[in-house]
Amino acid sequence: MKKLQIFIAFALAGMTASGVVAQTRESGPWWPHAQWGGNDQAGASNRITPEKILEALSIVETGQVYEIGQVYEASMPLVGTRTYGMKMLATGVPFGDNRVVYNDEMLSTEIGQVGTQFDGLGHVGGEVEFADGSRQLVFYNGFTAAEIDDKAGLRQLGIEHVKPILTRGILVDVAAYKGVGRLSGGYEVTLADVRGALERQGIDEDSIEPGDAVLFRYGWAQLWNDAAAYGAAQPGIGFEVSDWLIEKQITVTGSDTTVTEVSPNPDPSLAIPIHQELMMKNGIFNIENMTFEALSADGVYEFLFIANPIRFKGATGSPLRPLAIR
Amino acid sequence: MKKLQIFIAFALAGMTASGVVAQTRESGPWWPHAQWGGNDQAGASNRITPEKILEALSIVETGQVYEIGQVYEASMPLVGTRTYGMKMLATGVPFGDNRVVYNDEMLSTEIGQVGTQFDGLGHVGGEVEFADGSRQLVFYNGFTAAEIDDKAGLRQLGIEHVKPILTRGILVDVAAYKGVGRLSGGYEVTLADVRGALERQGIDEDSIEPGDAVLFRYGWAQLWNDAAAYGAAQPGIGFEVSDWLIEKQITVTGSDTTVTEVSPNPDPSLAIPIHQELMMKNGIFNIENMTFEALSADGVYEFLFIANPIRFKGATGSPLRPLAIR
Amino acid sequence: MKKLQIFIAFALAGMTASGVVAQTRESGPWWPHAQWGGNDQAGASNRITPEKILEALSIVETGQVYEIGQVYEASMPLVGTRTYGMKMLATGVPFGDNRVVYNDEMLSTEIGQVGTQFDGLGHVGGEVEFADGSRQLVFYNGFTAAEIDDKAGLRQLGIEHVKPILTRGILVDVAAYKGVGRLSGGYEVTLADVRGALERQGIDEDSIEPGDAVLFRYGWAQLWNDAAAYGAAQPGIGFEVSDWLIEKQITVTGSDTTVTEVSPNPDPSLAIPIHQELMMKNGIFNIENMTFEALSADGVYEFLFIANPIRFKGATGSPLRPLAIR
Amino acid sequence: MKKLQIFIAFALAGMTASGVVAQTRESGPWWPHAQWGGNDQAGASNRITPEKILEALSIVETGQVYEIGQVYEASMPLVGTRTYGMKMLATGVPFGDNRVVYNDEMLSTEIGQVGTQFDGLGHVGGEVEFADGSRQLVFYNGFTAAEIDDKAGLRQLGIEHVKPILTRGILVDVAAYKGVGRLSGGYEVTLADVRGALERQGIDEDSIEPGDAVLFRYGWAQLWNDAAAYGAAQPGIGFEVSDWLIEKQITVTGSDTTVTEVSPNPDPSLAIPIHQELMMKNGIFNIENMTFEALSADGVYEFLFIANPIRFKGATGSPLRPLAIR
Repeated sequence: MKKLQIFIAFALAGMTASGVVAQTRESGPWWPHAQWGGNDQAGASNRITPEKILEALSIVETGQVYEIGQVYEASMPLVGTRTYGMKMLATGVPFGDNRVVYNDEMLSTEIGQVGTQFDGLGHVGGEVEFADGSRQLVFYNGFTAAEIDDKAGLRQLGIEHVKPILTRGILVDVAAYKGVGRLSGGYEVTLADVRGALERQGIDEDSIEPGDAVLFRYGWAQLWNDAAAYGAAQPGIGFEVSDWLIEKQITVTGSDTTVTEVSPNPDPSLAIPIHQELMMKNGIFNIENMTFEALSADGVYEFLFIANPIRFKGATGSPLRPLAIR
Repeated sequence: MKKLQIFIAFALAGMTASGVVAQTRESGPWWPHAQWGGNDQAGASNRITPEKILEALSIVETGQVYEIGQVYEASMPLVGTRTYGMKMLATGVPFGDNRVVYNDEMLSTEIGQVGTQFDGLGHVGGEVEFADGSRQLVFYNGFTAAEIDDKAGLRQLGIEHVKPILTRGILVDVAAYKGVGRLSGGYEVTLADVRGALERQGIDEDSIEPGDAVLFRYGWAQLWNDAAAYGAAQPGIGFEVSDWLIEKQITVTGSDTTVTEVSPNPDPSLAIPIHQELMMKNGIFNIENMTFEALSADGVYEFLFIANPIRFKGATGSPLRPLAIR
Repeated sequence: MKKLQIFIAFALAGMTASGVVAQTRESGPWWPHAQWGGNDQAGASNRITPEKILEALSIVETGQVYEIGQVYEASMPLVGTRTYGMKMLATGVPFGDNRVVYNDEMLSTEIGQVGTQFDGLGHVGGEVEFADGSRQLVFYNGFTAAEIDDKAGLRQLGIEHVKPILTRGILVDVAAYKGVGRLSGGYEVTLADVRGALERQGIDEDSIEPGDAVLFRYGWAQLWNDAAAYGAAQPGIGFEVSDWLIEKQITVTGSDTTVTEVSPNPDPSLAIPIHQELMMKNGIFNIENMTFEALSADGVYEFLFIANPIRFKGATGSPLRPLAIR
Repeated sequence: MKKLQIFIAFALAGMTASGVVAQTRESGPWWPHAQWGGNDQAGASNRITPEKILEALSIVETGQVYEIGQVYEASMPLVGTRTYGMKMLATGVPFGDNRVVYNDEMLSTEIGQVGTQFDGLGHVGGEVEFADGSRQLVFYNGFTAAEIDDKAGLRQLGIEHVKPILTRGILVDVAAYKGVGRLSGGYEVTLADVRGALERQGIDEDSIEPGDAVLFRYGWAQLWNDAAAYGAAQPGIGFEVSDWLIEKQITVTGSDTTVTEVSPNPDPSLAIPIHQELMMKNGIFNIENMTFEALSADGVYEFLFIANPIRFKGATGSPLRPLAIR
């Protein structure tokens, strides 16, 4: 319960007014360092132990695999000025007596942050006021921008430090619980929604354990082929549910929207604050732009979840092929 | 011998039906189409059935995970004129009252063909003379360059068609069998070597079943940080072992070198011919630039093998985070 | 008529010498080689001699410069699946006692073929049937795809071979002559239009000399900020005018549309055929996506034209900052 | 003489100790804004007036063009982790009855900062202490990082604001003056060297006028094909000569090395300080990695200099095809 107390203390101390007060290095619940030590760069993936993996594998009964990631292509919804250019190179002329030829491709894109993506711990931070009055950009575990920034890739917190993610996955089908095809843009999913959905699915809230993946279906993947609609205001979780996820000590959350959290935030002064809550403060990962339509149709809510980010040294995130196996 | 007879039937049927003339190599009976049908684009990944997955999961006893892929970074060995540019973008200025900032990166590279890579079925083909005297570039399942080429990605045989790879993995530790730290560059691994290594490891050759992953350790990963040495002549398998792999109906092979096959080929007139044998003719995948040093040190030769290519639409290959779990 | 006779001689010589059969279009006597010799890679830029440059410089009277190229940015009209991604990299942390920092950027794009662009001689070719019945892809001066293709850049006909372009520029203001703000999409500019426009501008047709740049204003640049409208059917020249340009032995043409030629071609079976006439057959360059609104407003029709492609080795084209100076 | 006095005041006030003291917004010779006004983004290119262009054109006597830029290719010397990837895309299959095909390429690189390059005003800045004690990153004309930073390109000071550069060019052949093939790495060119070289060339120092381009030949281009040697310690100008250039009110300088200034600086605590002197404080541009071997061989020291950066919106620099015409 120690963790819980720390969390509550943080919530009380830190969330006055706008939800995140300026902190000093000496104080605040995520200072001076993460629970896994001051050098930790793996965050909540530390919870994926061999025992956890064995437990997750034991969930599988049929061997049926669900693809819950999207295919990467130029027409997919992209945030802001991001681009995705994958181009086939010239095949060239045959060589050798076996007349071999080969194709390859050039990919140019913000690869960790387009399409289905695994947000790493160097992706989102915040400006924090230190005790000496200076203001610095800070990321997970107190790493500052000055400590991690490098044109050639993050010097700390790169995605290569994330441990393999094979864990128990739980899908919270909020759209089905609310009896809608998909939630409305801008709707904040409440804890009551989450509990109602779990109850509907026959999953005991107390069965959620440290290291689990808790994923949310909003029904938003139905808009994947309509970039304008997909990119508009989106439903998602807010502080209430993120507090609960942190308390549950999960390893990773995720959803079928671009940011998992409600966007825009009901408090218009805040910009993707749940990203800070989960990643920056607690080392919990976030997987975006998945699709759970098939899982929902089949009523599959608990499964072996496999989501291993590609180890691009110094990257902020990774493309992903997440799988749910039952 | 059943497999071989099927091959011959194919060869006969193919020459009649589609008007394709015999290949230069007698064992190339991949016409008129693959065993999974003329439209198939998944190749030997079709062998990964739910039953196969259940069988593979049952191998796991401890939950211990081995990373058998390399980290992607600018200093890694690259073939020819390939480039790898991963650059951190400007963090930008904090926004919102929560003063959030985010990092992202631009990656520009032949991503399916650098570092640890999963070679897809659109990667390697060959020029073939048709019955009408014309010569065309042909890939797996008879798809021609004219049918698949597109500047924006392959129209057929893109990596997105490969089914998830969770299967039984077998490591053939050739270097350990030969009693060397690593094999010599240019050495062709013989079938006797493979059988000797399996026997040393206590694995019955007949236990290798359709859908398995058979991986080869040459010890070459020890040179990963020395690009010049790594990229010189490499040990690997030749026609003898690839014929055996094809007969065994495996799904995927791979190794700790750039091409898995011996390079250069002992017949200097041939250029990466085993790529054609495996991929072009038989739909068997090839994973390159892995590392098996830890598996070898621990004597782990049989495991759950997870190697799911990222689904970049129309790509020839994919970066990968292959895992061995015992 | 001298030029035409040379063409015919080429046609006769070409069919005999190199075994190439006649082209579908009678006016395509570009075999066996260009008039500048079989190894030439500079095409009509050979016409820019020191004398030509002196003549061009002498046009300048006021020193006033007109920018006739567009700025490159993500929102500009792009053809097909082309992409333009320019991203600022992380500034990094200050270093040295002088606390220096530097910005740089990553650009990923089909740089020779987006925005204002200089089409080089390796850009457009065609499939040609040879005397032996074989069909090959052929480019300027008879270079075949097999001779120039390389994943790392063209081995022949790269843009770096184009000589500096400082020459006399003539703007043919077709839109002004026709009394419209801009021509209609799909309208083919006739030779009568060109002659009428020149007469209106007080330029004697016979004053057009070898090495000149003859540019066409259709008024299309007004649509630059509306990518959909800009990219629809465009006005432009056809065979009649391109024959005239070839006869005039100009060095470069260009316009304020994407392809300079009428698009689609009035003969719907033909795809950008004027590109083949100019570049492939005659080595005449084509600059696309310029803007002449200011020149037209000021009635400036003759000027020093500066348009030097960047020398990217093996590129098919180049971004450009074309200038008109009067 | 006003400008000169300001400069001297700056030199006295600012160059104590390390050459750049912390400045406040209210004080300092380049505050509160540049001589061309607080909104200026064109810097010393403002000096290229129509009159200046006419004067420059009048230098030309023969029309002979010298290419003084390098060709861009993968093997060229690159700084740090920069990459240059230019790849030919798939030609595709012929289309239309005219069987047209086209090549294009993907370029991925820090394009403004590789090879022959035109350094813009958003490229180099410095951390400055403001009167309130805060420290900010500042660029030309007092623009702060917060004001110009954007992942999609600089919001201010982008290279597109630089006016066309057609001006009088003067080559200072320091290597020839010193009687060596090339200067030694780390040698700081003195003002006496510059004056001696000009005298040897018969150029009166007083003839250097505002808006001129003053370029330095160190002989370093001879090492272009040896990236390791080229990238080692380089000769170049220091504070003494940059002060003189600033006093002369030139528009642009440049050389045949990577940074034009001596590298490393004789004061090891300083990192490329001349970049700050020229660009950040005075809006004077710098063109790097040129080659003057042919000019030197022919004894051509005064010429029409054409060096127009490509207008990539928001870029820090540009590739270039600089020309010298006599």
